[in-house]
Amino acid sequence: MKIAVIGATGTVGQAVCAELKSRHEVIEIGATRGAHRADLRDLASIKRLFETIGRVDAIVATAGHVHFGPLVEMTPEQFRVGLDDKLMGQVNLVLTAREYLNDGGSLTLTSGIIGEAAILQGASAASVNGAIEGFVRGAAIELPRGLRINVVSATMLEEARASFGPYFRGFEAASVARVALAYSRSVEGAETGRVYKVH
Amino acid sequence: MKIAVIGATGTVGQAVCAELKSRHEVIEIGATRGAHRADLRDLASIKRLFETIGRVDAIVATAGHVHFGPLVEMTPEQFRVGLDDKLMGQVNLVLTAREYLNDGGSLTLTSGIIGEAAILQGASAASVNGAIEGFVRGAAIELPRGLRINVVSATMLEEARASFGPYFRGFEAASVARVALAYSRSVEGAETGRVYKVH
Repeated sequence: MKIAVIGATGTVGQAVCAELKSRHEVIEIGATRGAHRADLRDLASIKRLFETIGRVDAIVATAGHVHFGPLVEMTPEQFRVGLDDKLMGQVNLVLTAREYLNDGGSLTLTSGIIGEAAILQGASAASVNGAIEGFVRGAAIELPRGLRINVVSATMLEEARASFGPYFRGFEAASVARVALAYSRSVEGAETGRVYKVH
Repeated sequence: MKIAVIGATGTVGQAVCAELKSRHEVIEIGATRGAHRADLRDLASIKRLFETIGRVDAIVATAGHVHFGPLVEMTPEQFRVGLDDKLMGQVNLVLTAREYLNDGGSLTLTSGIIGEAAILQGASAASVNGAIEGFVRGAAIELPRGLRINVVSATMLEEARASFGPYFRGFEAASVARVALAYSRSVEGAETGRVYKVH
């Protein structure tokens, strides 16, 4: 398969590329680094990317920012950061890039454990992750040409414990290599509309 | 209790008011009709409303628009209608109106069955409802002063079968009076962070 991984320079993206590379042609796409770049907030940027790299069999997105902060201090503008970036970025990708997928191809998005589980300062992330998972269930039944869509929801990464540990006390962490398996399962399996939970 | 119902002129809002009125002081707030009005997309409008009606013990929101349409024709702008209106409207309400709630007061929001269940043309609604439910779980653990927040997720209304029936073939409908009970349970109960499902 020819697979585009968007967010390939991030911790999860690197592990997904490592997992898939031995069996597939993987095209690594960064937001601000690397040979191929795309800004998912910008439809024209997504189109330019796929006009350059051509049609693919699978698209994986591991990119997206969300504002973390206390609910009682959060402004609507801060709340919107995650809607504009992590949510609409991935929605834009589905609405635009699906045209560059070969028949039977797949899209694999990224949500996260916050939303199903609550943590302090995570109200916006909870909302964004819930939105992505609802979207995937809704979109799965409408995609044409046998296209599939799934989402991976991971707990805190072992590799991110130094920075995120204080927010996730008591949560079991998962290694990024284990999280990458869920992306592989979505890309190389045959299911659609699934939330693959790594927690 | 003194209870503000926002969206009081709608089908669900009317039933919620009818359920609560016999036991409580209910202030009915419409978007474009009635003595009291508020546009939840506008923080200043929310503040003006509560400066007029004063502090309350409970706030119920049954208002919000979402774009329905085929996924393969949906534009990001159409997708954003529900984010700006149904999602951010209710988020704005929580961020702003909670300051006008008495200690121990409650917020009750509205999501819907689409998101948990998928229907054709419902990808945006699925995303918005997932976002609202994630937000409620996240916000519940951060609200100060014993404030509570829940959300009601209803299936198709019996009373809306004429217009929505074709989209919900095979779904059991619920009477709006039964849906109103879920709002009463949120307002008059003591739980927080719950999704009350009427389906």
